[in-house]
Amino acid sequence: MALIVQKYGGTSVGSPERISKVAEKVAKSYREGNQIVVVVSAMSGETNRLLNLAAEVSDRPSLREMDVLLSTGEQVTIALLCMALHQAGMKAISYTGGQVHILTDNVHSKARIKNIDGKKIRSDLEAGSIVVVAGFQGMDESGNITTLGRGGSDTTAVALAAALKASECQIYTDVDGVYTTDPRMVSDARRLKTITYEEMLELASLGAKVLQIRSVEFASKFKVPLRVLSSFEEGEGTLITSEDKNMEQALISGIAFNKDEAKLTLVGVPDQPGVAHRILGPIGRANIEVDMIIQNVGVDNTTDFTFTVHRNDYVQAMEVLENVRQELGAASIAGDEKIVKLSLVGVGMRSHAGIASTMFETLANEGINIRMISTSEIKISVVIDEKYLELGVRALHSTFELDQISA
Amino acid sequence: MALIVQKYGGTSVGSPERISKVAEKVAKSYREGNQIVVVVSAMSGETNRLLNLAAEVSDRPSLREMDVLLSTGEQVTIALLCMALHQAGMKAISYTGGQVHILTDNVHSKARIKNIDGKKIRSDLEAGSIVVVAGFQGMDESGNITTLGRGGSDTTAVALAAALKASECQIYTDVDGVYTTDPRMVSDARRLKTITYEEMLELASLGAKVLQIRSVEFASKFKVPLRVLSSFEEGEGTLITSEDKNMEQALISGIAFNKDEAKLTLVGVPDQPGVAHRILGPIGRANIEVDMIIQNVGVDNTTDFTFTVHRNDYVQAMEVLENVRQELGAASIAGDEKIVKLSLVGVGMRSHAGIASTMFETLANEGINIRMISTSEIKISVVIDEKYLELGVRALHSTFELDQISA
Repeated sequence: MALIVQKYGGTSVGSPERISKVAEKVAKSYREGNQIVVVVSAMSGETNRLLNLAAEVSDRPSLREMDVLLSTGEQVTIALLCMALHQAGMKAISYTGGQVHILTDNVHSKARIKNIDGKKIRSDLEAGSIVVVAGFQGMDESGNITTLGRGGSDTTAVALAAALKASECQIYTDVDGVYTTDPRMVSDARRLKTITYEEMLELASLGAKVLQIRSVEFASKFKVPLRVLSSFEEGEGTLITSEDKNMEQALISGIAFNKDEAKLTLVGVPDQPGVAHRILGPIGRANIEVDMIIQNVGVDNTTDFTFTVHRNDYVQAMEVLENVRQELGAASIAGDEKIVKLSLVGVGMRSHAGIASTMFETLANEGINIRMISTSEIKISVVIDEKYLELGVRALHSTFELDQISA
Repeated sequence: MALIVQKYGGTSVGSPERISKVAEKVAKSYREGNQIVVVVSAMSGETNRLLNLAAEVSDRPSLREMDVLLSTGEQVTIALLCMALHQAGMKAISYTGGQVHILTDNVHSKARIKNIDGKKIRSDLEAGSIVVVAGFQGMDESGNITTLGRGGSDTTAVALAAALKASECQIYTDVDGVYTTDPRMVSDARRLKTITYEEMLELASLGAKVLQIRSVEFASKFKVPLRVLSSFEEGEGTLITSEDKNMEQALISGIAFNKDEAKLTLVGVPDQPGVAHRILGPIGRANIEVDMIIQNVGVDNTTDFTFTVHRNDYVQAMEVLENVRQELGAASIAGDEKIVKLSLVGVGMRSHAGIASTMFETLANEGINIRMISTSEIKISVVIDEKYLELGVRALHSTFELDQISA
């Protein structure tokens, strides 16, 4: 008998009707002979409703009380899902994070799970019950309610799967798996049957927002096989797992892109130690997140320093950078807010030379100028002009035969 | 420094704006030098919203899961009230019932409090914090969430006051105290300054629904001084406390009435042991609650058996009674659904003869026929025709000078 942890997000449980549908899916898995633990999020819209209430009584609500408030969202869902499971003839019992001792640190609003006591859940499963656990929440050692922050329900599911040594952790969402690239852009984008944790991490952080990064890291750390599936359609989804040596590796698993980037370059920076810090320190203090950072070798004791930020932060970053320029005595600032980042991801890259040159050649053949390049072990990212995004993605998708490879 | 437990009901915390107003009231009490524990209900409307969600997924929701669902209502309020208190510059911390170990039995939806561990609350109070506790809820010995049923937040407040040995338990509501009778009916009805637990119990159970009976019983048992006040106006409200021997007792504290009664009489019942049970057994099994029960001495080996029920149950009760009549061989059934019950309540009755005869005389002078009479130590109830209700209440209010006595 397999133990499966299933997680359903806010959209999947967005109405009583959808909750009843989820109950049917869960019941089906149970009847196929599995033990099932279900993790659920708050019904979509509920968290915003609660945030609005808080905003009406306080302009700077305490994080502890915010956790008390927001954790009610998942608590409502676990109760409703159990009722729906009972209605479908199943045995089911609900637990809040605290009730099954999902022990976290005490960093309210972004707590991290330290330990889970699976005893209660195991005993319910053995008694033939489906166990429904509130995602996104836990309690600290003093019994205070904590929440795990964005994507926390995915993390809860993976952590429970690890603690219970589940066969699989299934993340039900509104897409039916992980694709070679965005199907809205490339019509023959293909759903991947499997992908490694590392590839998924690179794809997720690059904008293919199917799964939260933290939950993938967690799954990777505890070797929990993770499967992304659709709440609304049948299908096998995409299995995210460790690299399988016996499997023929595809060179490239997917193409990710970030549309909302802007780049800033400080030209003629003195080529001295500590300069990078003096540039990025003020940017960080202004709460601007930096994505790519590139600095080439210097010439004539000066160098150019380039980084990318979210497009919304472009104007503010420019202002901060102007002060930095004056302090450092840099020559000038250049910027462009009409750029995109495009990345090839694949563990196969490690053992195959020439991926990068094929990529650059493909783009050149299409007349696309590459503005910046950055690479990691399993990823190559380039920054190009916004207007070439679709052309570039389609050309690369075709060159690397992503529509054909059976992963 | 006095320790005061304050309870605010659903209407008092019915919107973010009202929650902010409650925060101001609480802050004022704190600044007057008191330690404050606040107990709150769910925002008005919230419980119904949750019940409607449950009804959409299940036609017979499990009571355990209903408790998980409904208890979120108060949890939302405690968080919002703490945020509002912080906004008002106060130190405040929220707790669910489970977090402060309000231990109950495991009867979901109408659990009873067995014990409260006041340690955590006391330590917060000593640290200068206002403590906000979710009403209506607790947990059983296995850590399951339970709710206390109707009026449960009042009970929570009184139980906390008892456990913490509070100086006073203040129940804030939408009326400014307990009146000699309904002010909507008798314009010179007067707010009572004090009233005994026993009188309040009789008044509450007779329809003056200011406080839930269970909370008054609880307060009486643990000698917790209970005060009813308005959330929206200033004023001292009504103090409910033990009988004070030194105080001059008013003969009568108040006049209560139940408008929605109906009476049923089984005529010519064999006057034998066990008959009352054979009549009321089927009524009870049909989930019909019986209020007054009257059986006079028998004549010729038969007697008449009369009881009153809520008017909504009249038709069903009649049907049940017809079966009983046939079984028992009783002569006939009589019924009347246009009756009301009117009751005089006062601990002073105990030591003063003649209250009853004054009452009956007053009603007779107004031409009001008394259909049934029932008495307890501090109460006389009569059933009269519905159309005489206002006339009867006003006449008695005047005869017993309830508009004048300073209680």
